[in-house]
Amino acid sequence: MSSETTKILLHEDEMPRQWYNIQADLPTPLPLPLGMDGKPIKPEDLSPVFPMNIIEQELSTERWITIPEEVREILSLWRPSPLYRAKRLEKALGTPAKIYYKNEGVSPAGSHKPNTAVAQAYYNREFGIKYLTTETGAGQWGSALAMSCKLIGIECKVYMVRISFDHKPFRKIMMKTWGADCIPSPSDTTEIGRKILSEQPDTPGSLGIAISEAIEEAVQRDDTRYSLGSVLNHVMLHQTVIGLEAKKQFEKINTYPDIVIGCAGGGSNFAGISFPFIHDKINGKDLRIVATEPEACPTLTRGPYIYDSGDVAKMTPLLAMHSLGHGFIPPAIHAGGLRYHGMAPLVSHVLQHGLIEANSLPQTECYNAALLFAHTEGFIPAPETSHAIAQTIREANLAREEGKEKVILMNWSGHGLMDLQGYDAFMSGKLEDYPLPDELLQQSLAAVKDHPKP
Amino acid sequence: MSSETTKILLHEDEMPRQWYNIQADLPTPLPLPLGMDGKPIKPEDLSPVFPMNIIEQELSTERWITIPEEVREILSLWRPSPLYRAKRLEKALGTPAKIYYKNEGVSPAGSHKPNTAVAQAYYNREFGIKYLTTETGAGQWGSALAMSCKLIGIECKVYMVRISFDHKPFRKIMMKTWGADCIPSPSDTTEIGRKILSEQPDTPGSLGIAISEAIEEAVQRDDTRYSLGSVLNHVMLHQTVIGLEAKKQFEKINTYPDIVIGCAGGGSNFAGISFPFIHDKINGKDLRIVATEPEACPTLTRGPYIYDSGDVAKMTPLLAMHSLGHGFIPPAIHAGGLRYHGMAPLVSHVLQHGLIEANSLPQTECYNAALLFAHTEGFIPAPETSHAIAQTIREANLAREEGKEKVILMNWSGHGLMDLQGYDAFMSGKLEDYPLPDELLQQSLAAVKDHPKP
Repeated sequence: MSSETTKILLHEDEMPRQWYNIQADLPTPLPLPLGMDGKPIKPEDLSPVFPMNIIEQELSTERWITIPEEVREILSLWRPSPLYRAKRLEKALGTPAKIYYKNEGVSPAGSHKPNTAVAQAYYNREFGIKYLTTETGAGQWGSALAMSCKLIGIECKVYMVRISFDHKPFRKIMMKTWGADCIPSPSDTTEIGRKILSEQPDTPGSLGIAISEAIEEAVQRDDTRYSLGSVLNHVMLHQTVIGLEAKKQFEKINTYPDIVIGCAGGGSNFAGISFPFIHDKINGKDLRIVATEPEACPTLTRGPYIYDSGDVAKMTPLLAMHSLGHGFIPPAIHAGGLRYHGMAPLVSHVLQHGLIEANSLPQTECYNAALLFAHTEGFIPAPETSHAIAQTIREANLAREEGKEKVILMNWSGHGLMDLQGYDAFMSGKLEDYPLPDELLQQSLAAVKDHPKP
Repeated sequence: MSSETTKILLHEDEMPRQWYNIQADLPTPLPLPLGMDGKPIKPEDLSPVFPMNIIEQELSTERWITIPEEVREILSLWRPSPLYRAKRLEKALGTPAKIYYKNEGVSPAGSHKPNTAVAQAYYNREFGIKYLTTETGAGQWGSALAMSCKLIGIECKVYMVRISFDHKPFRKIMMKTWGADCIPSPSDTTEIGRKILSEQPDTPGSLGIAISEAIEEAVQRDDTRYSLGSVLNHVMLHQTVIGLEAKKQFEKINTYPDIVIGCAGGGSNFAGISFPFIHDKINGKDLRIVATEPEACPTLTRGPYIYDSGDVAKMTPLLAMHSLGHGFIPPAIHAGGLRYHGMAPLVSHVLQHGLIEANSLPQTECYNAALLFAHTEGFIPAPETSHAIAQTIREANLAREEGKEKVILMNWSGHGLMDLQGYDAFMSGKLEDYPLPDELLQQSLAAVKDHPKP
């Protein structure tokens, strides 16, 4: 194979056999999660919510963690994912840069999310759990977990934010097709849901409410647990198959990236592509690693590094992370997966240590980038993915101006076939940009000013 | 690689360099298309509709036709497509059969349709054409041609059957995202459209009307031609990359199928998978080749082999094919791509020669099969594809009863992510089967009883 090949493929026996745990290599240890009393929480405090085998993985500092054979077998339905050389995009940009993208859109659910969903369903089933609850906003995570539970053989219930439930009928059919029970949140099946419905019968719902409902249901039954699709350490761990594969693929063509780019909402696809490369950077490799986020929800670029809750209702422990404040409600941009007030503690931590950079981008630039991608490479990107593409185009244009033949790797986190409304709005001239006004940010942060500092 | 591998991959330099033209190997020549006067049409009669380089290909009897390098380059964005071993489906069925499926859902448009769309856009551009018109029903073909025209660099206009235009908003956004102009048919931009609108302002439209509008626009301008996504010989030719790749993939694991299965609407995905295997069968290989169609539109199983028009308005030449009569309007089953009154002349011809079998299936059995597939293999199939899956399951069950380790190959023609309404209707118990009543068939055939016989 040469670097002129369009797709660099691996056979399934080349799929990683271990996940890479960046906690083994951090310059300083990750600050521990705190309870509401400000004291570090104990593993057993989390056991009503997560099974112990996942809690152990969450806290592990072992560098390599073996991927169970059954998880590998299921992942091999679409993995290893192809590494693409975007030759037609390079040509359209007239750049000397070589642009590579890791296509995570090849999974049955269309994104990187199943990489962790399969593993989480597996560990829960191994622990004796019969039933997983979760929340979903735009629906990428809910559909990934629905599929994974079906393939692993346990039940799944998804609380879907009501406004998405009403406006994204295809996503809920997708979950139902994979056998999951998908209901709008707030619902009348939980105490918190009934309380909110009685106060605001017409509420559009929110991720914060949906998380609270999913956790409330999970903690009530011995055979039920809760599953989260981003933010937590074990989720980042499971996603490292992306970067580990990409490294093998670059080895096959004797190439190594100068820049690695991923979009970041909760942080999981970014961690997946970048952590194996951060491992190299810690060991002396010279490369840039860039996380991109919407300017409407600029967690890494404008949110301080603080202890904050993972949800609006403060049901999670306090996590050391970049946050816009747990009460922050981002504007209704179409990249629903990037509308999160916080950022994975591990991603926040490596930014603190200067191992990565972060940049924020307006959504109209991202949609323009997505259209150029679809017009040259064919595949229609998810709105989230468009943030990685826009940054890649900026870097490729810079390479042209500097006359440098840089190698750029981006994580193409998913396809946009289930999210075409955003394209329609953009092409019809109906999309605006939402730079975050400083007074709004300060207002949101005021509510967390008494939180402990990491 | 062994037959135990989940995915049998080819590298892009192993993609076929030539298409296979079955016209070179037919036991008797294909009956010529006839004009309305009953005389064979001349190539130049078709030149206002198609460019001459495509007309030559339509009539060619050369066995191997070189795929232009630029077409190969674009196809390599997703080809060669993986050949999957459906191990989890086999296990669920408890069958000794080995089930393989060729995953054509990996293309950016999600189906096999771009295999010919790219080639057609290329040949038109090479002939100096700037603008292609076409029709689309459910939208798979329209989106494939939209994407292909964008990648090749010409304009595209799609007349979309009004009822689909109104009910399938995502498909039209997809076409618009790839830069095509998609308008509902009947429209007020053509004479035939205006005529129909003035008579029936609320008509839901039909493929027949949309074809008429697309052809009417194409023949009026020197720089414009029309493009068809199935039925014609050159379309079958372009799809043979599917079967040619599958044969190479089977060689890699030292296996050969006992049964090859594809669903058949106009015939293109079936021809794509099967023609290279029919080549072997003509040369003495012992295997079964099965086309499956909906019992609601049983062209091959109940339609006589006659000369009939390709469209309702009789704007096309008369083609020798199995047909339910050009006026036949199939019930509104969800497999929109299989709702066609006729069948590709080449597919009809090989059935006449006993080289293939045909079977018809009720849609509820097909949706059950599709759900079992999604629950075991993960990927959600298109409603059309579910007809190939249902037949595969029948054959695998038979293999179990007979205790035979048969090797089954099916063409997985596309994913169902853009067609989830059908799943919803099925899971809600709202889907019926529509076995075609004989009196309806006879009524439809009465209108074509004076056509010449092949």
